[in-house]
Amino acid sequence: MNTRLKKLSSWMKENDVQVCFVTAPENVFYFSGFLSDPHERLLGLAIFQEEEPFLVCPAMEKPDAKNAGWDNEIIGYSDIENPWEFIQKAIQSRVSKVSKVAIEKEHMNVERYEAISSLFSGATFVSAEEKLRKLRMVKDEKELEIIREACALADFAIETGCAEIKEGKTELDVLAAIEFALKKKGVNEMSFSTMVLTGANGASPHGTPGMTKIQKGDLVLFDLGVVWNGYCSDITRTVAFGDINDKQKEIYDTVLKAQLAAVEASKPGIACSEVDLTARNIIAEAGYGEYFPHRLGHGLGISVHEYPSLTETNSLLLEEGMVFTIEPGIYVPKVAGVRIEDDLAVTKDGVEILTKFPKELQIIR
Amino acid sequence: MNTRLKKLSSWMKENDVQVCFVTAPENVFYFSGFLSDPHERLLGLAIFQEEEPFLVCPAMEKPDAKNAGWDNEIIGYSDIENPWEFIQKAIQSRVSKVSKVAIEKEHMNVERYEAISSLFSGATFVSAEEKLRKLRMVKDEKELEIIREACALADFAIETGCAEIKEGKTELDVLAAIEFALKKKGVNEMSFSTMVLTGANGASPHGTPGMTKIQKGDLVLFDLGVVWNGYCSDITRTVAFGDINDKQKEIYDTVLKAQLAAVEASKPGIACSEVDLTARNIIAEAGYGEYFPHRLGHGLGISVHEYPSLTETNSLLLEEGMVFTIEPGIYVPKVAGVRIEDDLAVTKDGVEILTKFPKELQIIR
Repeated sequence: MNTRLKKLSSWMKENDVQVCFVTAPENVFYFSGFLSDPHERLLGLAIFQEEEPFLVCPAMEKPDAKNAGWDNEIIGYSDIENPWEFIQKAIQSRVSKVSKVAIEKEHMNVERYEAISSLFSGATFVSAEEKLRKLRMVKDEKELEIIREACALADFAIETGCAEIKEGKTELDVLAAIEFALKKKGVNEMSFSTMVLTGANGASPHGTPGMTKIQKGDLVLFDLGVVWNGYCSDITRTVAFGDINDKQKEIYDTVLKAQLAAVEASKPGIACSEVDLTARNIIAEAGYGEYFPHRLGHGLGISVHEYPSLTETNSLLLEEGMVFTIEPGIYVPKVAGVRIEDDLAVTKDGVEILTKFPKELQIIR
Repeated sequence: MNTRLKKLSSWMKENDVQVCFVTAPENVFYFSGFLSDPHERLLGLAIFQEEEPFLVCPAMEKPDAKNAGWDNEIIGYSDIENPWEFIQKAIQSRVSKVSKVAIEKEHMNVERYEAISSLFSGATFVSAEEKLRKLRMVKDEKELEIIREACALADFAIETGCAEIKEGKTELDVLAAIEFALKKKGVNEMSFSTMVLTGANGASPHGTPGMTKIQKGDLVLFDLGVVWNGYCSDITRTVAFGDINDKQKEIYDTVLKAQLAAVEASKPGIACSEVDLTARNIIAEAGYGEYFPHRLGHGLGISVHEYPSLTETNSLLLEEGMVFTIEPGIYVPKVAGVRIEDDLAVTKDGVEILTKFPKELQIIR
């Protein structure tokens, strides 16, 4: 068993769970190295306290799972076979009595729940998700290396977008140029729908890019990330097209000050809430408190939103290996929308900033 | 109640179902006109035999739901409120005794199932999905109009891709150019990951586009579709870059012959299996039976894969308003991969072909 599986098995022992059956593709990937989108077909990983884990997947994917480095048992099934029969046999050959099963209650659907429940009559089903989130929250060096690459590609995307800003170009023109350049670098999936917003659109925290033309005196907000070898990056930068007015400048400076202070405050042993409040207080003191309506940041890794969550109430302490965003924003309707977001990894005594595109205001002429 | 809701209510009466609670975004959209991706938040639509249906969604989305045309009750909830309490009250005010509830068992997760189960102790939970799929299978004129537009954009995408094929261009170059051009037309989502495959890659029914350069004498396979106002298109064309050899030509001609025959066979009253077998027999007679490993086609609409399924065993009869693909393919490893796919709508006495890019072999010089 690899280190990740061993940690889960320890938790199973402590909680008297005999079987953990994981089916969310991101969790299967985390433990097995096998990244696959099975669509409506079943992909699952059964984990035990001591016994050999096994993977169950469509038969045609068996070679891919092996190539991905999974060297424990793989059970393949065809479209006319019932995978639950194989799962039952494989579990029965490993453990004789099953009284507690851990599943992902926020992911598994009712149909599958009914199928797995019928295999273990009388067993209790508990949620594995909280434990899985905590395991994935702290990254190892191999994961950090991939996330660094994903962040470098995000930096490249912002550079590309800035170079594309010209009189007459629309938000979608700039967006298309960014994704075009990324595809040529081998990126075939974004972390989420890329945002390029300008003028009034940027003043909505969740706008949709459209045919609005970028005009001199506008701010342009980019929010994007790439999926790279299964891991996500997520960056936001706001740049000026030509000279902007004093109000826009004041908003930008306030967000930047808040962002820098929160980065500075981040280190092992500090609570998520303290990092959030560091930025939030600066924005409130500048009189923009009501225009910063969201949390400061979120963990990222295999999912673009994972643990830790940087809210003003989360007492969780930062620890080495956590990766998260710091992304304060101020959105004043019809005036300006500014957000600045970095991805960070907690180190032994501070943080490593993974996204490196400049944060001082970039004015594009 | 609109016509779609009325049809569901009739089914509920016939099956003695007092409440149907729909949470899959595509089904909520189908009944309410409100298209929203609620991520981890709850979006639901409660439907009754006679009483007024209600929508439940995050409070901030209430205005969007109203603007989308939903003029029945909308229950909004904030992030600190429990939506299930509101749902319970709203249901109790409509029906006094609930003994049977219909849910989407393939969509609803265990956490929500436990929540809704606790509201109706003793009630039976049945699956609504089969009925929902059947309702969505037959399109009305409004839906057809949108799908026609989605198909016209798919045609445009193939044109764009063909114009981009040149010596030295990679699969990803061509793919990026296609999506760039679509974004400029206002398309912000593809039906699935766009495929541009050339040479040996095209001989795998599920290849991934990469940095392979297109070479003279290669076939290039495009498989793509756009999401347009909530509806999907899906087209495949295979074109030649320069002159191809006799074997490639023979394969192309066989696929085309099979595709045309299956389109010709499609009309109300014909079984899905008969349409599949029309194409399958032509391919088998030409000696390529083993190289056509998938079903002939699938329904499409709000989802890119929905009912009807065109397999060799599906006895379902085609009826007016059904929309589906016909996409035979032959994949001979290391020799050639050819697939030709159209989207069709069943009319009173035949079919309307919705995708119009030419199917005779296009040779790009």
